[in-house]
Amino acid sequence: MDASRPFFSTPQEAEAAFYDARERADIEALMTVWADDEEIVCIHPGGPRHAGYTAVRESWRQIFAGTRATVRTSHTHAIQGVLISVHSLHEHSMGPGNRPTRQPVIVTNIYMRGPLGWRLLVHHASFAPATAEPGARPTLLH
Amino acid sequence: MDASRPFFSTPQEAEAAFYDARERADIEALMTVWADDEEIVCIHPGGPRHAGYTAVRESWRQIFAGTRATVRTSHTHAIQGVLISVHSLHEHSMGPGNRPTRQPVIVTNIYMRGPLGWRLLVHHASFAPATAEPGARPTLLH
Repeated sequence: MDASRPFFSTPQEAEAAFYDARERADIEALMTVWADDEEIVCIHPGGPRHAGYTAVRESWRQIFAGTRATVRTSHTHAIQGVLISVHSLHEHSMGPGNRPTRQPVIVTNIYMRGPLGWRLLVHHASFAPATAEPGARPTLLH
Repeated sequence: MDASRPFFSTPQEAEAAFYDARERADIEALMTVWADDEEIVCIHPGGPRHAGYTAVRESWRQIFAGTRATVRTSHTHAIQGVLISVHSLHEHSMGPGNRPTRQPVIVTNIYMRGPLGWRLLVHHASFAPATAEPGARPTLLH
């Protein structure tokens, strides 16, 4: 197996590699999880939309150059198709003592199956309300 | 054709019906665009995750009970598979004189093809940075 292009046989494997690479702030490992194409889309919490491999890579380079954060996930809800799998989940940034450092981030991760296995196509992340559990606060207007 | 369950032969038709129903604040028309199942997920800007038909419907009912907004879309980027189609786009709330009332909203809409045609499975919406065009502002840390 080519270590630079691991084969992910399930979207769950690709997702585990994505969060592992984030934990280690390993940009090379992180970018092997993404589909190598111009269609990929990444939105960080409060940020603009980055489209295409080069822009997505640069956005993560900037993040990894900042404060290191340990990210935990929860509330994963997966809708798996034959070629595309959609995961909705919460991310939690953890600080000392394994305590959350701020409100959760709501994430939609979309994976696509290709010749090299499952790869990340879209990562859309946005801050959840600071207060609370899902549903505990009225939603804002569109 | 049963008017209460229109058939959408493309994800674009489903998306057009979604924004048309929003324009008219028509909850019944809006909910026919969504897949009728417990897997659907909806995140409004700054809001929590709503999962399942009942919770999603209630979230839109609250929105439609508030201020009416005209929503325009732009920057649509579609990745269409056989059974799932992923649309990334910007929404703009328009006020008098057809001017944007605030910063754009970045949206990921995911459609699924079923026996009744294409239906909305996930709507994830989050505020873009207030200032600017995509890429004009550094992204926040995860």
